[in-house]
Amino acid sequence: MKFDITHKDPGSSARAGILQTDHGVIQTPIFMPVGTQGSVKSVHQEELKTTINADIILGNTYHLYLRPKTDILQKAGGLHKFINWDRPILTDSGGYQVYSLKGMRKITEKGVKFRSHIDGSMHFFSPESVMDTQREIGADIIMAFDECTPYPCDYKYARRSMHMTHRWLERCIKRFNETDPIYGYEQTLAPIVQGSTYTDLREMSAEYIAGTNMPINAIGGLSVGEPAEELYAMTEVVTNILPEDKPRYLMGVGLPENILECIALGIDMFDCVLPTRNARHGMLYTKNGVINMKNAKWKEDFSPIDVDSEAATSRDHTKAYLRHLFKVKEYLAMQIATINNLSFYLWLVRTAREKIQEGTFTQWKSVILPVITQRL
Amino acid sequence: MKFDITHKDPGSSARAGILQTDHGVIQTPIFMPVGTQGSVKSVHQEELKTTINADIILGNTYHLYLRPKTDILQKAGGLHKFINWDRPILTDSGGYQVYSLKGMRKITEKGVKFRSHIDGSMHFFSPESVMDTQREIGADIIMAFDECTPYPCDYKYARRSMHMTHRWLERCIKRFNETDPIYGYEQTLAPIVQGSTYTDLREMSAEYIAGTNMPINAIGGLSVGEPAEELYAMTEVVTNILPEDKPRYLMGVGLPENILECIALGIDMFDCVLPTRNARHGMLYTKNGVINMKNAKWKEDFSPIDVDSEAATSRDHTKAYLRHLFKVKEYLAMQIATINNLSFYLWLVRTAREKIQEGTFTQWKSVILPVITQRL
Repeated sequence: MKFDITHKDPGSSARAGILQTDHGVIQTPIFMPVGTQGSVKSVHQEELKTTINADIILGNTYHLYLRPKTDILQKAGGLHKFINWDRPILTDSGGYQVYSLKGMRKITEKGVKFRSHIDGSMHFFSPESVMDTQREIGADIIMAFDECTPYPCDYKYARRSMHMTHRWLERCIKRFNETDPIYGYEQTLAPIVQGSTYTDLREMSAEYIAGTNMPINAIGGLSVGEPAEELYAMTEVVTNILPEDKPRYLMGVGLPENILECIALGIDMFDCVLPTRNARHGMLYTKNGVINMKNAKWKEDFSPIDVDSEAATSRDHTKAYLRHLFKVKEYLAMQIATINNLSFYLWLVRTAREKIQEGTFTQWKSVILPVITQRL
Repeated sequence: MKFDITHKDPGSSARAGILQTDHGVIQTPIFMPVGTQGSVKSVHQEELKTTINADIILGNTYHLYLRPKTDILQKAGGLHKFINWDRPILTDSGGYQVYSLKGMRKITEKGVKFRSHIDGSMHFFSPESVMDTQREIGADIIMAFDECTPYPCDYKYARRSMHMTHRWLERCIKRFNETDPIYGYEQTLAPIVQGSTYTDLREMSAEYIAGTNMPINAIGGLSVGEPAEELYAMTEVVTNILPEDKPRYLMGVGLPENILECIALGIDMFDCVLPTRNARHGMLYTKNGVINMKNAKWKEDFSPIDVDSEAATSRDHTKAYLRHLFKVKEYLAMQIATINNLSFYLWLVRTAREKIQEGTFTQWKSVILPVITQRL
C-alpha cells in the first residue's frame, strides 16, 4: 500500500492522491459504493466497473460473517473471487452493525456479544476475532474494531467509549501483526478516530490514532444524526491532526454537499449507503439537482432522467418512464436509479479530483454546490 | 409486415422464417420476453438488445391500460418511445389478464367488465376498445380480444366461448380496419384460435381464423394447466389447418421442451413468463440442465453458473455466489438469473433456427432435449 499526494488545492485542504493496492490503484478523493453482503444492491459488477467505474467497493464484515460465512469465502479464495471483483475492496469491522442491533447486543471490554438479526443465534465479536474474520474475507483495506457512539452521546460515555476503542485498537494491531494475509496479497489495517461531537475528545483520539502510525486513518462516529456543522467541525478538528501524507477515510459520509465540504477539509475516502438506498426510494442525484422521482410532476416529463449523466440508462430513459417504473414497483426502477446515483457520486469525486489538479476546486465547489443540491 | 419462410426441416413441420416489421426484422422461430408493464422484469433494455439479443418483446395491454395509462403513452409517442425500445413489440389483448381476475369481472357478448386489481375501480374492455387501446399503445403486432378458457373446460362452455371469440374477432377486424396507426408505422392484427382441448372445436376455430386471412395467426388457450400431450395434440391439429405461409404464434408457451416440440409442429413465435418468473424464484435454465439455485448442493460449488452461456454474468459468476445472493435476497440474484434464462431461451430458438437451416433440427432436438431438461 502506497499513497502519494499529487496535487493540493490552493484554496482549501483538499488534495488529490493515488493509493496503490495489490488490486489496483485508487484515485483520491474517492467514493466507495457499499456492497453490503457481496453485492452493490441491484448493480452488476460489470456496470460497477464500466459505467460507474468504481475504483473500490465496500463489504460489511457483520453481514458477510453471518452469510455466506467466512468458511465459504475461504473456500472461494476470498471475497474478491467469490463476487468476481478484481479491484480493491474495503471491509468495515462490523462494529457499526452490531451496535445498531439495539437490545440484541452487550458491549464489554472483551468485545460485543450479539444476536444475529437473521436467526437470533448468539455471536461474539472481539478486536481479535474481527481481525481474523477480515483476514478470512480478504479485503485490501480492513478496519479496526471500534465502538461507534450514537448522537447525541453524553460526554462521559463518549470519553469512556473512545478510550475503549483505543484499547481495542491496540489489540487489533497486535492480532493484525501476528497474522498474515490468507490470499497472497497485502491487507492494510486502518484505525478509527472516535470522540463523538466533543472537540477535546476528537483531538485526543486523532492524536492517539496518528501515534499508531498506520498507513490509512479513518474517522468514525460521524454522520450519525448530528447537524452538518458538527460533522464539518469535527472533521476539521481531526484532519488538522491526522498526518497529511496518509489517506483519510471519513466513514459513512454522506450527502453530495457533505462530500465536497469534507474533501475541502482534507478527506480522501468516503462511503455511504445514501446514493444506493435513496435510489431505491426514488431519490435521484443529478448534475442539475435532486429529483424525487415518485413526484407526480414527472408524470408527463419526457426529458432524460439526467441528460448529462455518465450512465446511458439515465440519458436514454425519461423521467416519465422512471416514475412509471417506480409507481408500478418494477425492479428496473431501482436498477436505473442506483446506476444513476452511483454514476453521479463517482462523477462528483472524480470532478473534484480534476479541479484539485487544476487548482480550481474551491471556486468550482462554490459554483456546483447550489446546482447539485437544489430540489428539482 | 412481410413473412418469408426460408427453410423447412425435412424431418418435421419446423420452419425458419423472416418476419419484417417497421421496427426491424424478427428471425423465426423466436421467443418473445414478456415486458408486462413496460419492463422485462429486472433487465435493462440495453441488456435485452445486446446480451439477450431479443428480436421482439411483449407488452400487456391490461397492465399498460391501467398504468401508466394510454394518455401517457400517447404523449410519449407510443410504447416504443416511452420505454426506449426501437425493436418490434407485440401486445396481448388484455383478455387473459381480465379473465384471471376471478370474481372481479363479468363477461357478456358486449365485452368484459372488470375491477382493477390496483384500486378496485371498474373498467370495461370490448373488442372495439381493445383495438383502440392497442392503437394507442402502438405495438407492431396487436392481438384480437378473445376469451381464454380455463383447463379443464366443459365442452359446451368451450364451444360457446369459441363462437363468441369468433364474433369478437369480426368486431376487432372491423374496428382495426376503420382506424389508423397513430405513430406512423404499421400495426398488424393477429386473430386467436380457441377451442380448449377439443379437437373438433380447435379445427373449427382454426378454419375460422384461417378464413379471416390475417397476416399472423395465433393459438390461445393452451399452456393453461393441460398435460403436455394435450398441448402438443391441439397445436398439431391447429397448425395442420392454419396457412403455412403465415407466422404462427403459440401464446404463453412455455418450457424449453414445449418450445422445441412446438417448433417441430410448425410454430414460429412464442412468449412465456416462465424464464423470467422462474428466474426470480431461483430456477435456472442452462445448456446443461435445469438448476434450482436455492438448493444447498450449490453452497460450495465454485463452478460458473453456466460456462456455455451467452451471458457474461452466467459465465463469470459461480453457482455458490448466485445461491448466496438468492439466500440473502439480493436484487442482483434476480438480475443474473433473469439474464441467464432469457439468454438461454433466445439461444434455444436461435439454435433451433440454425438447425432448421442446416436440415438437422429433428436430430438435434432429440439429442439436446434430454440434456437441457435434466435436473442438475
